[in-house]
Amino acid sequence: MDSSRPLHVLVLNASLKHAPKLSNTEELAQLVLNEMKKHFTIDATIVRLADKNIPVGLGYQESEDDEWPALVAQIKDADIVIFATPVWWGQRSSLLQRAIERMDAFDEEANTGGRSVLLNKVAGVVITGSEDGAQQTLASIMEVMTFMKFTFPPQCCAYWVGEVGKPSSEEREKRLASDATKDMAKTLAYNLVQMALLLREHPLREE
Amino acid sequence: MDSSRPLHVLVLNASLKHAPKLSNTEELAQLVLNEMKKHFTIDATIVRLADKNIPVGLGYQESEDDEWPALVAQIKDADIVIFATPVWWGQRSSLLQRAIERMDAFDEEANTGGRSVLLNKVAGVVITGSEDGAQQTLASIMEVMTFMKFTFPPQCCAYWVGEVGKPSSEEREKRLASDATKDMAKTLAYNLVQMALLLREHPLREE
Amino acid sequence: MDSSRPLHVLVLNASLKHAPKLSNTEELAQLVLNEMKKHFTIDATIVRLADKNIPVGLGYQESEDDEWPALVAQIKDADIVIFATPVWWGQRSSLLQRAIERMDAFDEEANTGGRSVLLNKVAGVVITGSEDGAQQTLASIMEVMTFMKFTFPPQCCAYWVGEVGKPSSEEREKRLASDATKDMAKTLAYNLVQMALLLREHPLREE
Amino acid sequence: MDSSRPLHVLVLNASLKHAPKLSNTEELAQLVLNEMKKHFTIDATIVRLADKNIPVGLGYQESEDDEWPALVAQIKDADIVIFATPVWWGQRSSLLQRAIERMDAFDEEANTGGRSVLLNKVAGVVITGSEDGAQQTLASIMEVMTFMKFTFPPQCCAYWVGEVGKPSSEEREKRLASDATKDMAKTLAYNLVQMALLLREHPLREE
Repeated sequence: MDSSRPLHVLVLNASLKHAPKLSNTEELAQLVLNEMKKHFTIDATIVRLADKNIPVGLGYQESEDDEWPALVAQIKDADIVIFATPVWWGQRSSLLQRAIERMDAFDEEANTGGRSVLLNKVAGVVITGSEDGAQQTLASIMEVMTFMKFTFPPQCCAYWVGEVGKPSSEEREKRLASDATKDMAKTLAYNLVQMALLLREHPLREE
Repeated sequence: MDSSRPLHVLVLNASLKHAPKLSNTEELAQLVLNEMKKHFTIDATIVRLADKNIPVGLGYQESEDDEWPALVAQIKDADIVIFATPVWWGQRSSLLQRAIERMDAFDEEANTGGRSVLLNKVAGVVITGSEDGAQQTLASIMEVMTFMKFTFPPQCCAYWVGEVGKPSSEEREKRLASDATKDMAKTLAYNLVQMALLLREHPLREE
Repeated sequence: MDSSRPLHVLVLNASLKHAPKLSNTEELAQLVLNEMKKHFTIDATIVRLADKNIPVGLGYQESEDDEWPALVAQIKDADIVIFATPVWWGQRSSLLQRAIERMDAFDEEANTGGRSVLLNKVAGVVITGSEDGAQQTLASIMEVMTFMKFTFPPQCCAYWVGEVGKPSSEEREKRLASDATKDMAKTLAYNLVQMALLLREHPLREE
Repeated sequence: MDSSRPLHVLVLNASLKHAPKLSNTEELAQLVLNEMKKHFTIDATIVRLADKNIPVGLGYQESEDDEWPALVAQIKDADIVIFATPVWWGQRSSLLQRAIERMDAFDEEANTGGRSVLLNKVAGVVITGSEDGAQQTLASIMEVMTFMKFTFPPQCCAYWVGEVGKPSSEEREKRLASDATKDMAKTLAYNLVQMALLLREHPLREE
């Protein structure tokens, strides 16, 4: 694996908590980023969506202080986008759902080449939850992002979920330290890097 | 079916559009409300979530101008709550997801009787979509609301979805006028009224 | 709660294991049945679908030795049907999916009153899984069964899932004994009985 | 795109209908195969799961006449596997679910290198449905197959669904001929071929 510039990695953290509050999801995403660095030089940015102003709507810019257009620029600049979300009642959080709704703007530009810019970007998924729903949340993200033209490498997800009825603070430490979690983070990191380098050197074409 | 006071019906409309823009979802919800009136006197309120300030978070009140507490009061006052949402990429909208996240506040009060107040309320679901995903969206709402203690009558949903690749404005008229849509609206309306009256007269108890 | 005859309860156990192998799902369903008996006299039958011959297809009877028609008779006789399934890769098992596909036969008879026979039956859900997916599995069952005309009482589900990477035999004992599991089983049992008695005395009508 | 031997393509058709009955799903899969041939030489096999004896269970071979092991050999031989299924009540069919359950055998062999054999295989999805649920069905397949080590190229799915309340025979012709369906088939075909050739020349490694 050799190539000149670092891989650009963007983490969209859809935690419901504002910084600097600890985000379980960000902790796991950070673990994945650390593993990625073992394989290649990366240039990583974590965006906490809870601290951005992303109004409801379907346009490219919904208000003067709408921070979505800046996010679009960051997505366009990334080789790898990691969709990181907590599970809330079996689904991605409202913040990730909002970002997905706003990605329709890519669609509107499509006539003039809009979403094609997402081709050859690689997607990964990071999920944490209090007790259940990681796989469904993963499924629902993959389904959207494949139509958005992202490529999914094998084992494209790292997650942990706690045990029903247990305090999530205790679960957090236990799960983050578990072998299953660490293995998923390692494999995800390695596969994201491999696939991104592969597509950089041999980009897919649109028909 | 006789009883004194009207049934209180609350529609949470999670359309991404602000009033007075036409909301497909609201149109269908209105059809259901009209059908309900044929069976019993109702007192209906439609809340367009896009026009409310409901910040991200998990507390009962997240900011001074947080409009969530007022919504909680409306939910508590309702006999029937209709969750009305468009489908965005296979899921309920970010606005409905936000409301669900905020309903965790009911949970926190649970020790002092919080969510018990939702027992004996009846839930219905109204969904519209550009092309696919109504049944999954329904599924994901039912799963949450059963744990929130709502009762679901038979055939608890009315929905329509358009055809992939077709302009949604054309699809809207066609679907809203279809027999399948009208039948679902009628059945939903009748079953919501029946069940709400039944639970008013014979409330379920908590163990 | 007084009424003459026992409530008929049918458990469709969609475990992949043949009897007499221990089925985690059946164990949890049994816990629910035991709790139901504390509230009312029940007459319960557990059917292990893995031991039935239910061929693929959409007809009422697909072969001479097709055991589906006998199951239809049992469903028709039940006041309460408990859909009990393990989670396999985020979904209900192939056996429950098969039963759902075969329930289309109820649909075909619908012109002559077919699925109306399911009105006033109450549905409950019991789920066990090795690590994730209970809530999605619940969601997907509720969505089907509401259109089949079943009523869902509040908190209509009891489930447990194990921890990713842990041997399921160890997890089984731990989860079955957890307070969260026991509470769900109790609440489900009580609510199923309450709702079934209510609908027996005050049956819903079709419009 | 140059390379010597043809790409091996395996279509697992999970239609509920036995051959030679027309399978909507197979028709659409065939459209995709035809498009693939425009880009590269392929060697395609369509297996109709309804005509195979695949008993319930989790072992590699569940009975003497179990046809699963032969399917495993076909999967191992494929460069591209297309998971083709109708939607039944919002989900993949019982036959695809059965195949997924049986793929656990790959898992059990994992210690001796089992599922690693799936690395560098590319997955595509083909779905048809009477009215709704394609995207959820796609989601649920992607989620499993990423953990099985398949790679998903961009826009990995072609599907059509009919309109609620309309006869499916009429809908079939209309949808199969629609531009949206044809575009999805073309793009899927092109992307599957591109990705399979890429991974043949530059295989991903396991960490």
